[in-house]
Amino acid sequence: MTSPTATLLIACPDRKGLVALLANFIASHNGNIIHADHHTDFTAGLFLSRLEWQLDGFDLTTEQITPAFSEIAKDLEANWQLHFSQKNRRLALWVSRQDHCLLDLIWRQRAQEIKGEIPLIISNHQNLKPIAEQYGIDFEYIPITKDNKAIQEAQQLEIIKKYNIDLVVLAKYMQILSQDFIRKFPNVINIHHSFLPAFVGANPYERAYERGVKIIGATAHYVTPDLDAGPIIEQDVVRVSHRDEVSDLVRKGKDLERVVLARAVRYHLQNRVLVYGNRTVVFA
Amino acid sequence: MTSPTATLLIACPDRKGLVALLANFIASHNGNIIHADHHTDFTAGLFLSRLEWQLDGFDLTTEQITPAFSEIAKDLEANWQLHFSQKNRRLALWVSRQDHCLLDLIWRQRAQEIKGEIPLIISNHQNLKPIAEQYGIDFEYIPITKDNKAIQEAQQLEIIKKYNIDLVVLAKYMQILSQDFIRKFPNVINIHHSFLPAFVGANPYERAYERGVKIIGATAHYVTPDLDAGPIIEQDVVRVSHRDEVSDLVRKGKDLERVVLARAVRYHLQNRVLVYGNRTVVFA
Amino acid sequence: MTSPTATLLIACPDRKGLVALLANFIASHNGNIIHADHHTDFTAGLFLSRLEWQLDGFDLTTEQITPAFSEIAKDLEANWQLHFSQKNRRLALWVSRQDHCLLDLIWRQRAQEIKGEIPLIISNHQNLKPIAEQYGIDFEYIPITKDNKAIQEAQQLEIIKKYNIDLVVLAKYMQILSQDFIRKFPNVINIHHSFLPAFVGANPYERAYERGVKIIGATAHYVTPDLDAGPIIEQDVVRVSHRDEVSDLVRKGKDLERVVLARAVRYHLQNRVLVYGNRTVVFA
Amino acid sequence: MTSPTATLLIACPDRKGLVALLANFIASHNGNIIHADHHTDFTAGLFLSRLEWQLDGFDLTTEQITPAFSEIAKDLEANWQLHFSQKNRRLALWVSRQDHCLLDLIWRQRAQEIKGEIPLIISNHQNLKPIAEQYGIDFEYIPITKDNKAIQEAQQLEIIKKYNIDLVVLAKYMQILSQDFIRKFPNVINIHHSFLPAFVGANPYERAYERGVKIIGATAHYVTPDLDAGPIIEQDVVRVSHRDEVSDLVRKGKDLERVVLARAVRYHLQNRVLVYGNRTVVFA
Repeated sequence: MTSPTATLLIACPDRKGLVALLANFIASHNGNIIHADHHTDFTAGLFLSRLEWQLDGFDLTTEQITPAFSEIAKDLEANWQLHFSQKNRRLALWVSRQDHCLLDLIWRQRAQEIKGEIPLIISNHQNLKPIAEQYGIDFEYIPITKDNKAIQEAQQLEIIKKYNIDLVVLAKYMQILSQDFIRKFPNVINIHHSFLPAFVGANPYERAYERGVKIIGATAHYVTPDLDAGPIIEQDVVRVSHRDEVSDLVRKGKDLERVVLARAVRYHLQNRVLVYGNRTVVFA
Repeated sequence: MTSPTATLLIACPDRKGLVALLANFIASHNGNIIHADHHTDFTAGLFLSRLEWQLDGFDLTTEQITPAFSEIAKDLEANWQLHFSQKNRRLALWVSRQDHCLLDLIWRQRAQEIKGEIPLIISNHQNLKPIAEQYGIDFEYIPITKDNKAIQEAQQLEIIKKYNIDLVVLAKYMQILSQDFIRKFPNVINIHHSFLPAFVGANPYERAYERGVKIIGATAHYVTPDLDAGPIIEQDVVRVSHRDEVSDLVRKGKDLERVVLARAVRYHLQNRVLVYGNRTVVFA
Repeated sequence: MTSPTATLLIACPDRKGLVALLANFIASHNGNIIHADHHTDFTAGLFLSRLEWQLDGFDLTTEQITPAFSEIAKDLEANWQLHFSQKNRRLALWVSRQDHCLLDLIWRQRAQEIKGEIPLIISNHQNLKPIAEQYGIDFEYIPITKDNKAIQEAQQLEIIKKYNIDLVVLAKYMQILSQDFIRKFPNVINIHHSFLPAFVGANPYERAYERGVKIIGATAHYVTPDLDAGPIIEQDVVRVSHRDEVSDLVRKGKDLERVVLARAVRYHLQNRVLVYGNRTVVFA
Repeated sequence: MTSPTATLLIACPDRKGLVALLANFIASHNGNIIHADHHTDFTAGLFLSRLEWQLDGFDLTTEQITPAFSEIAKDLEANWQLHFSQKNRRLALWVSRQDHCLLDLIWRQRAQEIKGEIPLIISNHQNLKPIAEQYGIDFEYIPITKDNKAIQEAQQLEIIKKYNIDLVVLAKYMQILSQDFIRKFPNVINIHHSFLPAFVGANPYERAYERGVKIIGATAHYVTPDLDAGPIIEQDVVRVSHRDEVSDLVRKGKDLERVVLARAVRYHLQNRVLVYGNRTVVFA
């Protein structure tokens, strides 16, 4: 699979012949499909598909593929994206004070588990700057207060644009992004702890402890204006017991958060995640 | 371990010498401890302990143990319970229309995984009566409506008393018990599905599907007047994906519910669960 | 999805245009695909696919589909199977003395979690006969000894044929089937406990206890002449601790076995399992 | 719990009065127990216990505790250890070429999840030396060949002694230690992948892939002369599917290995692990 590939993610109203239609588009241009996964959501009446094919021997250039396919897509009333493996994605990692997710993502990028570059770290605190320097990553310190939030978000958007960022990963960035920000830059993945039951509001770990939960979880999701309510990409849990104090819950939560966030970022960068409504299909 | 045993569950303010004090009480009467587990909740400043010892060779009769220990407990300002393995516990299974938890508990009781008798099934519907008959268990049909709830609960309490019931298991009994009922009969275990995040209100599975959760869970807990908010005994989860339709979530949830409920009932009947505040210590 | 469906499971050498080829076969006959999942095993150079489409409106009868598709398949050097949802599958459950998997499968079939009929239970012991009678299932008692094994297997094959059985489920049938038997009737699913590390030979639970394992597992697989070494359909695990005695490992193992076996049988009956080499693709 | 503590780990033949005996030793010297957990292995007829108490106010010095307790222990035919929280443990991390466990342990030590110092990294390869330098940890390069193994092990033992090492962690050190080495320095923890079933010998991931396993695991254990067969401290698993290629199994295995190894090292450093026979009690 050394050949570069194109990946199509598409969602459209279900009807007969869709798999054939898409596969024929690729086959008719001499493309070799290396991954094809389709799903029908009968509740929503939607057909959802991921097709990845090799570009070696494909008789359309990357420039020609998009216009060629948009002809087909128009007729399908489809939401669709085309991604090309040659394009290197650029990530910005946003952090506050905690380093566990930051270090984990940097390590995985270095280990090539996560494809893409990490040219930028943004934080509302200074304390993780040494990590940025250690790995030769630019570090932008942007303190946030109630009063300056709007101005700071404008500055953040500017920096994102300047660095040509494709994906913002909130790697324990403990700030809420405004609706306006998300509308202007929607590619944002967040990680947060999850509990059964959920504990909304402050000190969730203390309250999970008081409630004596036996399981804690972590959820990675796309950010929507409604905090912690965006389409879920990945979740996982770990067992806890009465012997775990609040600090143990926090420690176990951190382990989960870094694994779950890394999986979600990886799925996204592999173009395996298709969002529709408030849910995702992860073609894992 | 064929000898009958006594089990002490105790919670009291922490102080020096408690383990020695309790162990000496048993040793001084020639008791052989077969299980001893202690826990200190430093947040609450509480010492919590479970001690189980063999009664063969113990020089106090079961009648003498309680008064003898209450002398010690008084000084400790302790909440405590004493249980004797000879005493056969009597369970009432409360159901509505679903049979998965009911059949599972009956099977485990027959397989002696769950110690105790099941002399009674109570339901607000008739459709599970054949199962009761098949296994020779009395079946009390008590339909519930908004208007007759108080009267029916009075009747239920009477039946529980008549059958000398020790534990009520809500094996998918889709009715809320009143504060008054719980105050009069607090030994009630319930099972319900859990989600990350939680979905309060109607049709949780539909909403979990719409939300695209990747994990669903089940929680077994003691019932308190605040529905679904009592001390948690056991929880577990199962992974789901976009390929799981609502009916699949329901099916997977059922599998979880019966396993999690069975574990919780088993822990309770083994006197492994100590409740304090709104949480439990499960000396598993 | 009330329409009856056809399901194609196919494995063939990978080459360009396969997805299009298969999808076109269905589309050209006016079929509506409701599930399409493809996988390429680059190590083996194989294309593997599951396609399910509705037969309402499909312009080939079930009798015509097989010959029509075999034309295409020949050219692909494909291994393939066609299944029709109208055909009711018939299961034979084989047991020895343990009832946990047997009761679980019967309950799921009654709950329609598992599609198909269970007309027959075969056992080398008598003790589970009452369960068969209770559920109105024929019970064939076929005691096995070293000496009569060949004769008994012949008898078993006869009964399988007589009852027109499609799938044999070894629901804790503690006997090894001969190569000859498997060659004559290959559709056999088995469940067995699994450990990390594995404990080959007698008393695995005792030895897992002595080894102090922290996890025990269960594996459901197709039976091959090489015992416990056939293609794996499903696996799962449960945590154990030093507090679990051998009897607890056995109990927890039983819970796993029934869930894992039920999942495997369900996948098989939904035609989601494609075997190639000694491994499976489960199009779950 | 800012007070320094003493921790007793003890295993001895079971008999009446042991809990009282141990608790009285601590209480009689005015010690405050903050963790007490006992376990009886009825199969082995052994009593196993962990007791941790605060040294503030305890009327024996750390120098006096050991001789004082050995008087008691003699009579019990006990195997026992005493650990003092003030004593800082010193770890040597042994690696080959892979860095995932190394970086993880260093990060956790920096985050104080793991108590102790890491003054030394030993490797039979040079490529991880930059990590050692980056974190200011001494790096000893000791290439191993069949011929020089004995000499090199002698050198390793010398270095361990020179650095006053308490625990050797084989953080993916792909070399087998000799019986002689283990006899001279038994405190060695190893991590390795585990499978259901197990794959002994070369290329286990390739073979797990060929076998189509649905779960892969990792096991952390104390090293014994019998490779990969020492007392198990911790295990965990992760699900895999047909979509996971060998490289995915390796990647998922790495994630497991670092989490499982970290838990095991943490338990050991908290003196929660008691070895007897070929199994452990983890007083978690």
